[in-house]
Parts: sequence; C-alpha cells; structure tokens
Amino acid sequence: MKITLAKRHGFCFGVKRAIKLAESNENGITTGPLIHNQLETERLRSKYGITINERLEQIPEGSRVIIRTHGIPKHDFKTLEARQQIIIDATCPFVTKPQKICESMSEEGYQIVIFGDIEHPEVKSVMSYALTPPIVAATMDELPSAKLKERVALVSQTTKKIEDFFKIAEYLIMRCAEVRVFNTICNATFDNQESAKHLSQNSDIMIVVGGRNSSNTKQLFSICQEQCAASYLIEAANELQPEWFFDKEACGITAGASTPQWIIDAVMERIQNYLSSKEV
Amino acid sequence: MKITLAKRHGFCFGVKRAIKLAESNENGITTGPLIHNQLETERLRSKYGITINERLEQIPEGSRVIIRTHGIPKHDFKTLEARQQIIIDATCPFVTKPQKICESMSEEGYQIVIFGDIEHPEVKSVMSYALTPPIVAATMDELPSAKLKERVALVSQTTKKIEDFFKIAEYLIMRCAEVRVFNTICNATFDNQESAKHLSQNSDIMIVVGGRNSSNTKQLFSICQEQCAASYLIEAANELQPEWFFDKEACGITAGASTPQWIIDAVMERIQNYLSSKEV
Repeated sequence: MKITLAKRHGFCFGVKRAIKLAESNENGITTGPLIHNQLETERLRSKYGITINERLEQIPEGSRVIIRTHGIPKHDFKTLEARQQIIIDATCPFVTKPQKICESMSEEGYQIVIFGDIEHPEVKSVMSYALTPPIVAATMDELPSAKLKERVALVSQTTKKIEDFFKIAEYLIMRCAEVRVFNTICNATFDNQESAKHLSQNSDIMIVVGGRNSSNTKQLFSICQEQCAASYLIEAANELQPEWFFDKEACGITAGASTPQWIIDAVMERIQNYLSSKEV
Repeated sequence: MKITLAKRHGFCFGVKRAIKLAESNENGITTGPLIHNQLETERLRSKYGITINERLEQIPEGSRVIIRTHGIPKHDFKTLEARQQIIIDATCPFVTKPQKICESMSEEGYQIVIFGDIEHPEVKSVMSYALTPPIVAATMDELPSAKLKERVALVSQTTKKIEDFFKIAEYLIMRCAEVRVFNTICNATFDNQESAKHLSQNSDIMIVVGGRNSSNTKQLFSICQEQCAASYLIEAANELQPEWFFDKEACGITAGASTPQWIIDAVMERIQNYLSSKEV
C-alpha cells in the first residue's frame, strides 16, 4: 500500500502564530480553546501552563489573557479591557478581516449576510461587529425566509467550502440590487481543500486527522467522503483500526489547519507499522 | 395543434417608453436604430418621419435628436450638446443604471468588469462611463487573460442570461478580495426568459419573434433551443414555413423585448390560418 500525505495540509498561518504567542506567554489564560485541537491545547497546558476559561468575568483582574484564534465577540473584548487584563490577541488575521468588513459595511447601511454556523465561535465573534442584526446562514435553506435589503454585504466563515459560498452569493445576486461579496475563505483552507480533493480522488482509503469540533477539519472530511467512500476522521493515531487498510492500495492522509505535525507524524508512523508488521 | 403565447413576452418598459417618445417627436433623428427591430423602426419612419443617423457630426445643428434605447457613449452625448441639438433621451433607464455604476465605481477606484458583447451599442455606451479602461467579457474565455485588481465592480449587459452572469461573478469572487456585484439584467429580460424556458419545455415547436440583431431575442432563441429542438427565430410572419408544423402538437410563441405586438399578432394569425386551411 502506498501512503501519500496531501500536498497542502495541517497548520495554517493563524494557528502557527497563535501557538507561538501562547508558548511565549506562559501561564496565560485562553478565552476558550485557543485552537480546535484538544491534544495540542493539552500540550500547551502541560508544557506552558496555558489554561482555558470561557467565563471572562471569572478571570482574575490583571491576568494575561490570550484571545483564541477564532476571535471573541466585541463586547467580550470590552469586558477584558474593563477588567484591565493584559490582552494577547491571537485572533487569526483572516478572522479580523470579516470582523472589520461587518463593522464598516453595516456602518454604510448594508445588510450583512454571514455564511457560517451561528454556533461557531468565529461566527459569533464576526457577527458581533455588525452594527445592525446580521443574517447568518449555514445552508441555503436558512436564507429564503430572511428579509433582505436592496444592498447586501456577504462574508464567509474562513473555513467554508467555496462552492457553497457561490450558491449563497448567487441567491443574493438574484434578489438584491447590489451584493458586495468579500471572499473571506482563508487561503490555507482553500489550499488544504483542493489538495484533499485531488488526493482523495486517487486514494481508496483517506485518513483525515483533526479535531471533531474543528470546522475546517469537518469540511475536509466531507470533501474526502465525496471522492472516497473509505474516509475516516480521527483525532489521534490510537483511533486507527488495522482492518480499515485490508486490501487497500492507496492511502491518502490529510489534516485540518489546527492539527499539529506531531499528531500527523504519529498517525503515519502507526500506518507504516501496520505495513511492516504485515498486519495489513 | 395547440398554440400558446409565452406568459411574459415582447415589449419591455424601456422600449414602450422610447416608442412613445419617438411618436411624440415627429421628424426626429435617432442615433442609430431606436430599437433592434427593423419593421418597427420602418413603421416609425413612414408614419412619424423618424430617421436614423449614426454619424452624429453629420446631423444638422439644432436638430431634434432621439437617443436610442441602448444609450450612446458619453463623448457622443457631449458632441450632441456641443452642436446644440435638442436632445430627447430615450435611453432605457435600465441602461442608465449600469452607466452610472461604471462612473461611480471607477471613481472609487474599482476595476470595472462588464459582462456583455463589446460590439453591442448598449455595452459601448455603458463602458464609456468608466473613468479607467473596463474589462468587457462576453464569455468566460475572455476573462482569464484580463489583469484584475483586488477590488472589482461587476455589471451586466441588461439582456444577458443570469446563469452566465453567475459564472462570471464566481470567477471574480474566486480571485478578488472584493467583488461588488450589480445585477443589471433587466426584469423584463429575466421574466421573458423564464417564461420562454417554461413554455419551450412543454412545446414541440417554438417560434421566437424578433430582430436578428436584437441581443435579448438571441438569448430567448438560445434558451428555447436548449429545451426544444424545433425552435425557429423569425423577424416577420412571412418567414414561417407550413412544413415546420407538420405532426406538431404544441406550438409555443415568444418575442423579444423590441418586438411590437402587431408583428406577434400577424405571426399568430398566419399559424392559425395554417390550421384552419388544414395545411398543417
């Protein structure tokens, strides 16, 4: 069996930057998980004393608070400032962009439409910047009932699929006089998705490594499933099952933007071991 | 054989308005054909003395000049003003809209992209309002070589198909940080197209009545051809051939936005005559 790692996979710029910030701010408190990868946040806790606390009003005044990569709602930022916390902003710059767009476009009177999951922390942070209530839609079905203005500004959660974003844009273009479309899907997401698509088309088993609560990992998994029936989403090497690989010829591996290389390496090592021990 | 006229067909608001203006300005000179229908412009000539002259510098000073529905380039307008012509502006308001958008968006520094045929008078008029050279593309193939700015404003020729407009929009959304999409396809075009699509799906012969140089008529014809193999584009009733209707059960009829009702009536009458004379 041939094992191939997707050309583009794993850590993106924003995640790398956030981890560096956390490592250089020992004993900092993150506002919710810094990234959606439990094994990595656990590593940061054990090695650098980085803890998690989503209840901002409980964080002692004057603490060193690290903003998670997904950003936080605008009013939470104000809460932290009011409590005179030392703020280390690890919000991914790709998330800061839609935040700013929401603010300026709603200031200019545009109806804001966010393509994303209303429960995802990134979307919660982005929507908080709109000065008027934004429309948030994770699927086309969530749009038709929405009242639309003549002038609409559209942004996307950074980790969404571009094809789905197009569908939302088309729906709006059909109905509104002007649609300002800001393609805020981040490059790393897009590149990882393209590589995963290509690799899964040429594999008979695909392993997607990443957090089950990670939006971009879930998107990768969905793309792989479309192309390769034997696709599996795992968080760590110990979830692998040797029988998955029986009679398989081409194994593809990809990983979400919040999956550290050490987890990917462990996964690859275990699969290699299956091969050498002839378990597969 | 059952004969059905498309629910929405023929004259649009802009054409009706232009003809009214021409009829109330006898002996006026139009800047090129007022509308893309030779039989109707001939009627205006014989009944109201409306003539056509595209060479604006040849029109005697102080003449009554009627601007065609498709608009004219901005500098031509200035020529007319300089020659102190009496200007009657029959530019369709749906064309004035993209003209204004091109002007204001290029003023704001956006790269203008016009989805349309560069040789069409409407597109020539619209593009003349851009302060920086616009990109004009009639198909996707005309886009890739174009250099795109980060911020792009997209308008459409009023008579294009919405599905093709979406494709151009997608291409730009994929490549540009911001795309301001102005859906300038006019309602009448859209409604006529939807009706033609629906009717041609339920017909085994489709007659499209309109000028061969009329953009919206050509679009209707293309839509009908996609749904019904026996589709014919005619300018007048005398082009009909009885043998087209042999063994046909459902005949659909539609007409372009510049096709007057009297031509459509003549077409329907002739088909009815085929039926009653049992030629069919």
